[in-house]
Amino acid sequence: MSLALSRRTTLRRLRSLFPTATSTSPATTIPASRRWLSLRELDAEKQDRERVVILGSGWGGFGVARSIDTKYYQPILVTPRTYFVFTPLLAGTAVGTLEFRNAMESSHSLKGVEVVRGYGVDWDPASKSLTVEGIRNEADPGKTFQLPYDKLVLSVGAYAQTFGIPGVRENAFFLKDVNDARRIRSRILARFEEASLPDCSEQDQRRLLHFAIVGGGPTGIEFAAELHDLLEDDLSRIYPVLVNKADITVYDVAPVILGMFDNRLQGYAQSLFRRQGIRVKTNHNVLEVKNDGLVTKEDGHVPAGMVVWSTGLATNPFVKNTILGKGFKLFPDDPKAEELKVCKSQKAGQILVDTHLRVLTIATAEGKEKAEPKPLDDVFALGDCAAVGTQGLPATAQVANQQAKWLAKSLNNAAKGASHPVISSVGKRLVDIDEEREFGFRSLGIMAYLGGWRAITQSGGTDLKGRLAWLLWRTAYFSKSVGWRNKVLIPVYWFLNWILGRDINRF
Amino acid sequence: MSLALSRRTTLRRLRSLFPTATSTSPATTIPASRRWLSLRELDAEKQDRERVVILGSGWGGFGVARSIDTKYYQPILVTPRTYFVFTPLLAGTAVGTLEFRNAMESSHSLKGVEVVRGYGVDWDPASKSLTVEGIRNEADPGKTFQLPYDKLVLSVGAYAQTFGIPGVRENAFFLKDVNDARRIRSRILARFEEASLPDCSEQDQRRLLHFAIVGGGPTGIEFAAELHDLLEDDLSRIYPVLVNKADITVYDVAPVILGMFDNRLQGYAQSLFRRQGIRVKTNHNVLEVKNDGLVTKEDGHVPAGMVVWSTGLATNPFVKNTILGKGFKLFPDDPKAEELKVCKSQKAGQILVDTHLRVLTIATAEGKEKAEPKPLDDVFALGDCAAVGTQGLPATAQVANQQAKWLAKSLNNAAKGASHPVISSVGKRLVDIDEEREFGFRSLGIMAYLGGWRAITQSGGTDLKGRLAWLLWRTAYFSKSVGWRNKVLIPVYWFLNWILGRDINRF
Repeated sequence: MSLALSRRTTLRRLRSLFPTATSTSPATTIPASRRWLSLRELDAEKQDRERVVILGSGWGGFGVARSIDTKYYQPILVTPRTYFVFTPLLAGTAVGTLEFRNAMESSHSLKGVEVVRGYGVDWDPASKSLTVEGIRNEADPGKTFQLPYDKLVLSVGAYAQTFGIPGVRENAFFLKDVNDARRIRSRILARFEEASLPDCSEQDQRRLLHFAIVGGGPTGIEFAAELHDLLEDDLSRIYPVLVNKADITVYDVAPVILGMFDNRLQGYAQSLFRRQGIRVKTNHNVLEVKNDGLVTKEDGHVPAGMVVWSTGLATNPFVKNTILGKGFKLFPDDPKAEELKVCKSQKAGQILVDTHLRVLTIATAEGKEKAEPKPLDDVFALGDCAAVGTQGLPATAQVANQQAKWLAKSLNNAAKGASHPVISSVGKRLVDIDEEREFGFRSLGIMAYLGGWRAITQSGGTDLKGRLAWLLWRTAYFSKSVGWRNKVLIPVYWFLNWILGRDINRF
Repeated sequence: MSLALSRRTTLRRLRSLFPTATSTSPATTIPASRRWLSLRELDAEKQDRERVVILGSGWGGFGVARSIDTKYYQPILVTPRTYFVFTPLLAGTAVGTLEFRNAMESSHSLKGVEVVRGYGVDWDPASKSLTVEGIRNEADPGKTFQLPYDKLVLSVGAYAQTFGIPGVRENAFFLKDVNDARRIRSRILARFEEASLPDCSEQDQRRLLHFAIVGGGPTGIEFAAELHDLLEDDLSRIYPVLVNKADITVYDVAPVILGMFDNRLQGYAQSLFRRQGIRVKTNHNVLEVKNDGLVTKEDGHVPAGMVVWSTGLATNPFVKNTILGKGFKLFPDDPKAEELKVCKSQKAGQILVDTHLRVLTIATAEGKEKAEPKPLDDVFALGDCAAVGTQGLPATAQVANQQAKWLAKSLNNAAKGASHPVISSVGKRLVDIDEEREFGFRSLGIMAYLGGWRAITQSGGTDLKGRLAWLLWRTAYFSKSVGWRNKVLIPVYWFLNWILGRDINRF
């Protein structure tokens, strides 16, 4: 056992040098997560802490779970995918600039956080309970259980917006999760392999190798840029003849791409894309996506081997149907209790929250339409599924990340301030967040990669474009990546893929 | 362009330092692969070389493609998966000891080798032509084309043997390809996530976390060992309660596991497995595999969350139906031409080859049953799909690898010896391999990993067991891994996974 023991010693020694969220050694002062506990055991482990149920493991939910103080709270993360995706790297993983796992962080690595792989399917604000459907493989699908909470954090994100355009769900590729990136990478390489069959006609080759991207926002543009790099750097060496028959087209219904950047940077992006041979078709309306291409109002049927869809966000069905759709009474036994509804943001149908990220409700009784919205003290929403009053914040990782940090800190501070935490009972709030401290978004700037080692960044009044912006872009993303594994692996992959080319194995 | 140029310069410089199969820079003396060429272009590119069509990209086919001299031969690799799998690492990738891509090498990286992603579906020895079905995604499935050859190398491997036991194909997991490993890794982690749901009963947990392995050969045993390590090293930290409810059982119909090792090493493996809590059930007959377990004659229905099947090899259907199944005449226009059939090995239904790896044929006419088998001079078979006379070689990577090297060298030598290579015409052989030089297998020994940093190796008369054998095992596999990318990445992953634990993200 000497080697095994020394391994553990080494582990402990190394981990103590690098205190990090990825360390999984049990903490001594707080109950370690035991994964898994029965519901009864969960209640026992709770001790005198409040239970915070967090729905979703994206920038919002994972961020709260990572920063909440487990001395005061028992965080339970309910999520269908048990990992966090570092979304800015996703477009790169879709072409092999990095590997999929470089953009992933396991929620199992969060100290003291219990993880439930499942969906929220119903919510009872009166009894403070969430109905959860665990994800099971075959036996008992759809089996649900009740998970009582003291505080609930809604951070379920949003779905891809398809505008009801036919064929999008069936035939287009999205770019919201690691699995999407994997499908895209596999499709690109499959198309080249198919086009390289000796009996493939030139017409078929041009169809198979036309890659259409719908949506000229940062995600669509960065994917187009990464795809251009893959063709230019790697596939041009492997398929020198075929790569000349490949085409990338970006479609957008708006007159410009990258609308959130100023004109000068937009113009730079446009002209750089032109130089790189990426076609940009603004003012184009996509009418349908088929399995062999897409139909636009302007150009009719355009053959394509892959259509990537990235046109913005639609309300998550759980938010739409359950959170926003159901009326409820906070005190159902009280005959005078008002029926309430969660407020919906006008613009994007998100959950409306106040500046403390508390979910706003409004009485639905007749004649009450003009009543003031009131916050629920124990239910919070953040990220893409929430809108902070009329702040009109963009649905970005940066916003969700800042909200998560703000909320975790507010909850931690509130708990520290409360002199005697006691075991909560249904309907009784224990710790309220400070009314004085409000959430405010501080933009750190926006950036987009454009291919060929060039990017644009816009921060305050400072614009940068070209290689320096690229360096800033890469540094920013690298420094934000979480976990020691990826801190090591990301530079290794960047270096290896630069020297040896991207890994073009398809499986 | 300065940076892009300097990148290329760096590339060239680095590549010239490390001459390797993964270098993709076009060679100057021989036509570089252009991926892709039409059939007409393929013929033009052929010049005065012989075309060698290689079926399959495993140890046999990839090995021949890698070593054949493209000055004399035009190698065309026809394979449904365009990568080579370094199979000894596969069991490790199935639990995350290494990543899937660490066990893969792209056939696109082979200089001067054209790659066709497709299957051989028919073969005409008289016109020396192979019918190939290219793998296409949606349009024109099943479209085939004729690929004429001067020499044909059959290295299509074998399928997993199921003995016709019901439910194996539907419910069991195999471990022959990277995709199999990916499915297994995903299933193991899914089972733990499912078992960790707060409403999962203890009985369900024990079912979900029982991992059954059928087959006590090296593949099954090494997978059991790697799975044990995953549970012991990593899942025990993440699921400290659940891991005690997990079980690994190895079933085999034979009275011993690892039958190819001597008694002393078998005994060591048995007792080490016992100490590690891996159950070994020899003399057990599996009657059925279900989606929630398996049925054995001895124990009845045994609940299980995953059944991995590794009980040996069955004849590839293409070999069975086309190569072995069809009679043919070499000179169909000659009324006196004999009808021939490819010889089948008695034991495992493989293609029988002579000691020059040439496919043996026998006349099928009545009264000719006792005729001497005659080799085809232009068709070779090697690896798992072939049997060298009565040598009774094991179906291992080592054998296929040595055969591939032998065949490539023999072909290269023969071509060098032929004074004036000329463009071949149908039915005319140009280069014959040397009749004097025969293939002989030289066993370098056998080894198996047993878990907990312990292995067994047996080489000549020397047995090793324990940690020293483990070191030998790891060194041997590392030194054999191909490609600079994996030479760098494999030690990085070994180190990171040792320090930080395996990556347990599931997607």
